[in-house]
Amino acid sequence: MRPLEYKDGALKLIDQTKLPTQKIYVECTTYMEVAEAIKNMIVRGAPAIGVTAAYGIAIGAQSIKTQSKSEFMQNIEEICNILRSTRPTAVNLFWAVDRIYKTALSHMEKSLDEIKQAILNEAIMMDSEDVEANKAIGKNGLSLIKDNFTILTHCNAGALATCDYGTALGVIRAAHDAGKNINVYADETRPYLQGARLTAWELTQDGIPVTLICDNMAGHFMKSGVIDCVIVGADRIAINGDTANKIGTYSVAVLAHENKIPLYVAAPLSTIDFLTESGDSIPIEERVSSEVTHIMGVQIAPSEIKVANPSFDVTPNKYISAIITEKGIIYPPFKDNIIALAP
Amino acid sequence: MRPLEYKDGALKLIDQTKLPTQKIYVECTTYMEVAEAIKNMIVRGAPAIGVTAAYGIAIGAQSIKTQSKSEFMQNIEEICNILRSTRPTAVNLFWAVDRIYKTALSHMEKSLDEIKQAILNEAIMMDSEDVEANKAIGKNGLSLIKDNFTILTHCNAGALATCDYGTALGVIRAAHDAGKNINVYADETRPYLQGARLTAWELTQDGIPVTLICDNMAGHFMKSGVIDCVIVGADRIAINGDTANKIGTYSVAVLAHENKIPLYVAAPLSTIDFLTESGDSIPIEERVSSEVTHIMGVQIAPSEIKVANPSFDVTPNKYISAIITEKGIIYPPFKDNIIALAP
Repeated sequence: MRPLEYKDGALKLIDQTKLPTQKIYVECTTYMEVAEAIKNMIVRGAPAIGVTAAYGIAIGAQSIKTQSKSEFMQNIEEICNILRSTRPTAVNLFWAVDRIYKTALSHMEKSLDEIKQAILNEAIMMDSEDVEANKAIGKNGLSLIKDNFTILTHCNAGALATCDYGTALGVIRAAHDAGKNINVYADETRPYLQGARLTAWELTQDGIPVTLICDNMAGHFMKSGVIDCVIVGADRIAINGDTANKIGTYSVAVLAHENKIPLYVAAPLSTIDFLTESGDSIPIEERVSSEVTHIMGVQIAPSEIKVANPSFDVTPNKYISAIITEKGIIYPPFKDNIIALAP
Repeated sequence: MRPLEYKDGALKLIDQTKLPTQKIYVECTTYMEVAEAIKNMIVRGAPAIGVTAAYGIAIGAQSIKTQSKSEFMQNIEEICNILRSTRPTAVNLFWAVDRIYKTALSHMEKSLDEIKQAILNEAIMMDSEDVEANKAIGKNGLSLIKDNFTILTHCNAGALATCDYGTALGVIRAAHDAGKNINVYADETRPYLQGARLTAWELTQDGIPVTLICDNMAGHFMKSGVIDCVIVGADRIAINGDTANKIGTYSVAVLAHENKIPLYVAAPLSTIDFLTESGDSIPIEERVSSEVTHIMGVQIAPSEIKVANPSFDVTPNKYISAIITEKGIIYPPFKDNIIALAP
């Protein structure tokens, strides 16, 4: 289940705003279309956003007409900045854009056509690396999932949030594929309903048993003893382990902590921001109020009502039991163990 | 803002399933219509349900044709049982039905017409007592609300949940009316969206500043220091202070506790179940899955997805700072202080 697919100069995206009632594809043939698709959440999920942006630069590079290398690099920088500006919280976006930019720089002695090809090759490599990383995350997380576990997840950190397989849902997939009997409780994840629309759909497609609940029910099911562990993805992990993820993750983490239920963050190393000391300095995106006041176009609140709509929150490291990466499981003390993995 | 109004044998209800985009009234002229209105949440909120049921019995009593007192009482008992069966969690419903039944019993020496009138008079008295109780709750809670407080509330414990003025929103109204500068954050309260549809609307009507958030954002705003206190209503309070209230209240309470923010329950004494030792034995209503999978008729989840939809949860007493009643504020130890108020 790949949410993005590059072919012959075009990036084909599943329109994730339309799932699960409609499965529609959007084709981007310019970097501006790619930037708009990220901004409008046609594609979302930290790893998927990163690779989408990489393809966006590759598509943009193809269209640069100049024969001057310095003009070419100026254009590339502009494209990079436009893609960087689409969403502020997920660090994979900046990581991916930087990686592509450095690829271009490191091929400066080549011809412009070769540089363009190198950029595209790098994007394709990041795409397949992401899938490999997710499978490794799944395998590494396997030891944490016991038979007959009921696992709570928030938002969608699945195949749809990555290039395939998923991070949090990658661990769940790996456990299911290993023959473990597992059940998933999926928070619907307001306002954008990634849990109801995407996680519920994705797991159902794979035949993994899933029960959909509203966000405010998770605590009740933890207290009732239904939930054995929580697995979530991440948009940015600070060096001390503080984790920015979809709004509501902090609440889930506090409730898990209070009920002595382990909470695991599943994410590739590209989600770790080695320049950020703690969660306090992670920027939190505020999105439009209509995401809260309207659901699929239907008004659910008084007109003109004041709304707050932070898209992410930060979970302090003390509520996180472990971080599952493609290089292994990171346990506390997070700072020491994360720095040891720095590139 | 009265959600229910009895006049000349008919109970006129605001259809709370249609607010805020439409303000439509439903008129019930039989006790079965009243029972259906409670079941379908045309009227909701523990105190409002209680008084609605009382009027339902009064309307049902008028239509009993027999001249035999024992047959009359059998009919009354049947009507009482149908109304009792509408919703299981809010204790005010059982309290109100019992009170009306006892009123009938205590007038057995009178004529049938006089008994019917006595039942109606009792319902009318309960209606006005509720409004008086809410105003007293508001006045009693005033000391807990400081100037410039931002107050989080969950669900709708407002005028629309009572006969007027509200319990949690009664305290907020009293603070606003006393000239305190207060702001309210309203959880939207999935699945039924009482916060987005009712609380946001009700407070806006009264000119009280309100910001609408999704349920999963409340923790984030507590951690960010935005919220000074939480006030919620209640559907049933056990003798030890454990409180059943709208699903999500437990989560809000744990998050408030973790962030050292006081949480107050505002409720009339009729919400205390003096027969229930602790929250463990409070029945939790499970409602239909379509409330979760569809919002105002729009499908937001895969067809056939498994859903859990508990309508209430229980907040253990340790997360409750105080219970604001019409007789004063109850502080811990709740058991001793609640028993002291037993009728």
